[in-house]
Amino acid sequence: MKNEKAIVVFSGGQDSTTCLFWALKHFKEVETVTFQYGQRHSQEIEVAKSIAAELGVKHTVLDMSLLNQLAPNALTRDDIDIEQKEGELPTTFVDGRNLLFLSFAAVLAKNSDARHIVTGVCETDFSGYPDCRDVFVKSLNVTLNLSMDYEFVIHTPLMWIDKTETWALADELGALDYIREKTLTCYNGVIADGCGECPACRLRKRGLDQYLATKERG
Amino acid sequence: MKNEKAIVVFSGGQDSTTCLFWALKHFKEVETVTFQYGQRHSQEIEVAKSIAAELGVKHTVLDMSLLNQLAPNALTRDDIDIEQKEGELPTTFVDGRNLLFLSFAAVLAKNSDARHIVTGVCETDFSGYPDCRDVFVKSLNVTLNLSMDYEFVIHTPLMWIDKTETWALADELGALDYIREKTLTCYNGVIADGCGECPACRLRKRGLDQYLATKERG
Repeated sequence: MKNEKAIVVFSGGQDSTTCLFWALKHFKEVETVTFQYGQRHSQEIEVAKSIAAELGVKHTVLDMSLLNQLAPNALTRDDIDIEQKEGELPTTFVDGRNLLFLSFAAVLAKNSDARHIVTGVCETDFSGYPDCRDVFVKSLNVTLNLSMDYEFVIHTPLMWIDKTETWALADELGALDYIREKTLTCYNGVIADGCGECPACRLRKRGLDQYLATKERG
Repeated sequence: MKNEKAIVVFSGGQDSTTCLFWALKHFKEVETVTFQYGQRHSQEIEVAKSIAAELGVKHTVLDMSLLNQLAPNALTRDDIDIEQKEGELPTTFVDGRNLLFLSFAAVLAKNSDARHIVTGVCETDFSGYPDCRDVFVKSLNVTLNLSMDYEFVIHTPLMWIDKTETWALADELGALDYIREKTLTCYNGVIADGCGECPACRLRKRGLDQYLATKERG
């Protein structure tokens, strides 16, 4: 695939930054796309921009605030405001979010003459979202190809690996330190090793500790 | 399907209004959704709202101005403004538009506890858009079901019929006069029989004349 172009669905977090390094290794040209909507920690967009700039890849931010129109509470009950605490998933999480993101990424890819789409979705740390499953991604790949009469290939380098193995992959790609120091996973918006307290930080740290322990033991 | 709920992708034009009458015949409860974006004749939204109100069905308008971010010229060439003449398709027509609309309709359907989605896409008057083909719709149906772990059924009552037969269907549904008088197909924003000059009016009129001639001959 060395002569082809890929677009990476990119949030500036550990997983999608690992995917970005993976794509830079496998493709001649790489672009990134970040989806911006109310639910995200706003700092994420800045981190994504900054990493894309450092790695010298084009970065497109798509405004997906449209998603908020689809939140069930806001739609079905006019009297309820969408409640959201800083850094937490909103109560009105939108079904099919990944379906929508990957569909928009495909439209963007075709417009950029790219046929490869790289996403960090993962069935191993199963989140409970059906649109992170491998069977969904494969079905979507066929649907996208039919929808635009184009031969997209969706790549999911993290689909079958856990957080420990994701750190191992980052290390193989020569990017362990970079990803550890520059990415944002923390719900409280603290870059790198994060606040250490929130669920995302704990998950990230456990994987890293396990990987580093394995590496030391050789 | 008499006891179930359907959502109709609805523009206020001849085709989708025929689909709306079809849905009202086949389902216990019917809702409609209209996608609003820069490309549409703004009067279309008003016509859709008014028809939905007259027929007593819930109507949701989703702001899809996001699509303009994906227009190839605007994205790939910063120096070019998106050119658009009133009432014409823009030069920057977005690939996969129907993929995106039907995906959003599905998210909305699930949030409204509807599993049936009705759309007026048609392979007969083939528009050149691959995402109007039956094979695409069937693949998307599977993908949507996997994406949300839900059993959507996409209905396409117009898929295999031409404009003449669409008028015949409207007549069967007891809605020929209503659709003739209340819907907007004309590129120049003239309701009912329209300006008579634009391609949409000519196509609509040819179908109607043929249907009425056939009907008179009995």
